[in-house]
Amino acid sequence: MKAAFIRSKGPVDNLEVGEFPNPEPGNDEVVIRVVISAVNPIDVYIRSGMALMNVPMPFIPGCDFSGVIESVGNQVQGWSAGDRVWGSNQGLLGRQGTLAEKVVCHPQFIYPIPDGVTFESAAAGGLVGITAAIGLFQKAQLMSGESIFVSGGGGAIGSTVIQMARAVGAHVAATSSSDEKVRECTGLGARFVQKYTDPGWMDAIRHAVPAGFDVLWETSRSPNFDALVSLAADNARLVLMAGRDARPEFPVGPFYVKGCALFGFAMFKSPPHQQREAAHLVNDLMAHGKLLPKIAAHFSLHEAANAHSLQESMTLNPSPNSPTGKILVHISDTL
Amino acid sequence: MKAAFIRSKGPVDNLEVGEFPNPEPGNDEVVIRVVISAVNPIDVYIRSGMALMNVPMPFIPGCDFSGVIESVGNQVQGWSAGDRVWGSNQGLLGRQGTLAEKVVCHPQFIYPIPDGVTFESAAAGGLVGITAAIGLFQKAQLMSGESIFVSGGGGAIGSTVIQMARAVGAHVAATSSSDEKVRECTGLGARFVQKYTDPGWMDAIRHAVPAGFDVLWETSRSPNFDALVSLAADNARLVLMAGRDARPEFPVGPFYVKGCALFGFAMFKSPPHQQREAAHLVNDLMAHGKLLPKIAAHFSLHEAANAHSLQESMTLNPSPNSPTGKILVHISDTL
Repeated sequence: MKAAFIRSKGPVDNLEVGEFPNPEPGNDEVVIRVVISAVNPIDVYIRSGMALMNVPMPFIPGCDFSGVIESVGNQVQGWSAGDRVWGSNQGLLGRQGTLAEKVVCHPQFIYPIPDGVTFESAAAGGLVGITAAIGLFQKAQLMSGESIFVSGGGGAIGSTVIQMARAVGAHVAATSSSDEKVRECTGLGARFVQKYTDPGWMDAIRHAVPAGFDVLWETSRSPNFDALVSLAADNARLVLMAGRDARPEFPVGPFYVKGCALFGFAMFKSPPHQQREAAHLVNDLMAHGKLLPKIAAHFSLHEAANAHSLQESMTLNPSPNSPTGKILVHISDTL
Repeated sequence: MKAAFIRSKGPVDNLEVGEFPNPEPGNDEVVIRVVISAVNPIDVYIRSGMALMNVPMPFIPGCDFSGVIESVGNQVQGWSAGDRVWGSNQGLLGRQGTLAEKVVCHPQFIYPIPDGVTFESAAAGGLVGITAAIGLFQKAQLMSGESIFVSGGGGAIGSTVIQMARAVGAHVAATSSSDEKVRECTGLGARFVQKYTDPGWMDAIRHAVPAGFDVLWETSRSPNFDALVSLAADNARLVLMAGRDARPEFPVGPFYVKGCALFGFAMFKSPPHQQREAAHLVNDLMAHGKLLPKIAAHFSLHEAANAHSLQESMTLNPSPNSPTGKILVHISDTL
């Protein structure tokens, strides 16, 4: 099979495309023909060495995928060849990734693609959908009728958080980087959206929701705790899942006097049963048209280095006019 | 009745002692003859104006007390004159405080003093006991068999947290400021204790508990997030309840990759039913000899300014040899 891989961690040029032996499933594994692999910031961190994570060499990056089951191990129950599936959490913790024509998975990390949902949406929605569901419901326990502020609502995570919060009946405010992305956030159901490059954005949000927010989700790699805590209601829950090198100042007094809680998490370290619970919610929302992942760009497997290069620039050097959303790598056709 | 009071917020000299009318209970209130009033950092914050809290003028400071019920309003059930009680949460949110011969309370904020528990312990254990119980069990959900690190185990809060964590079967490590306080922490049941003035304290703690801690409690007004997160196990819960003006740097990456949660709270803003649940645990532990509040010093009502002065220096300018524990003001005898 063909796959994109690295022989050692380093810059984007380390990514090559070459031949690997076709994988066989172990007794408790399935082999999936990958239709689409989606790129995530974590792929850049692992490939570049920014994330201190041991990987086998040569290493095939890639967490997310959609595809079709090709073969199943003799102890696997509930899955058959031909099933349309998606998954996340490959290319991590010693496992090879999804920038390949085939991937071997443990069934605990695969989910059915609902009827009417495309391979594109399933691949693009995976990691961000599970992340949003874990953060909103398992961590922050957002409830219907509560208010949520999404810092960076125009990105892949932010746009998913907005849609998911709206789907459960929460009131959403957001910031984004450009007029176009502000319009997108509004289109997804955010009621108050400000461009965070406008100096008055915080006053405008505070004026719109003077009681403060019950949940505040920071997508930025440079979290602004002063803004989040300032906009928080008493007993607010803050969510944090990015910013590996950030060391912002933390306003201790306002945080504890308001009784805030801050939840940090890396989706791929959540236990499989929590990821599965989140994935089922993602499926339910996608099947009902309430969650449409945002897609930034499309590449072929031979363009894997270009896909990583774009993700790297979006993640490490974002500008107001950067594209946002998921980067998809189309690997095989859907027949 | 006699009371210590201020006519305006400001330095310790603003505290006077004078005569006030004897209070009468409203229909749903009780009047308590105060035996002991305990001083807390919050009293300094309110008296000095550091806490932006509206208070009636003239204002009698003081949150904690132990005493004897003198009279009850005609709608109060379950309490009678002569009952030995303790409470916290006075002198806040518009209520007059406890540096007085009598205090009017709503019954939701008073608790019985168990047989065999002294007025001293009941007054000294109040705010710190409720704080420790809320933080450990309602916020961090410490479980038997888990490990906890207490930064600043020698103080009033820290020594209470150590005892309470031990009482539920947790493994405790702590830091403190002097050899004497290290011995005290060990005596309370902390297994590994280091002087935080020793440069190698963190390595020593990490070596003793290499898996990291499930719960980490910061008592310092200058929280050290790098140390806390570095010593945290995956999915650790951090507790924060002090440091009004602190703005330490926050290590975003290590925090979220470990899946940490940070809980801040101000005990007096917790709902009454949560304070009551915590107070019942405090009572249970005190009645069984498992919680003995640490007492730093004793004063009379006429020495109220000295009591505030000592609390101010312990809170705002602590040194390794500062006394630690609760400051008690003895107001009436126990007959």
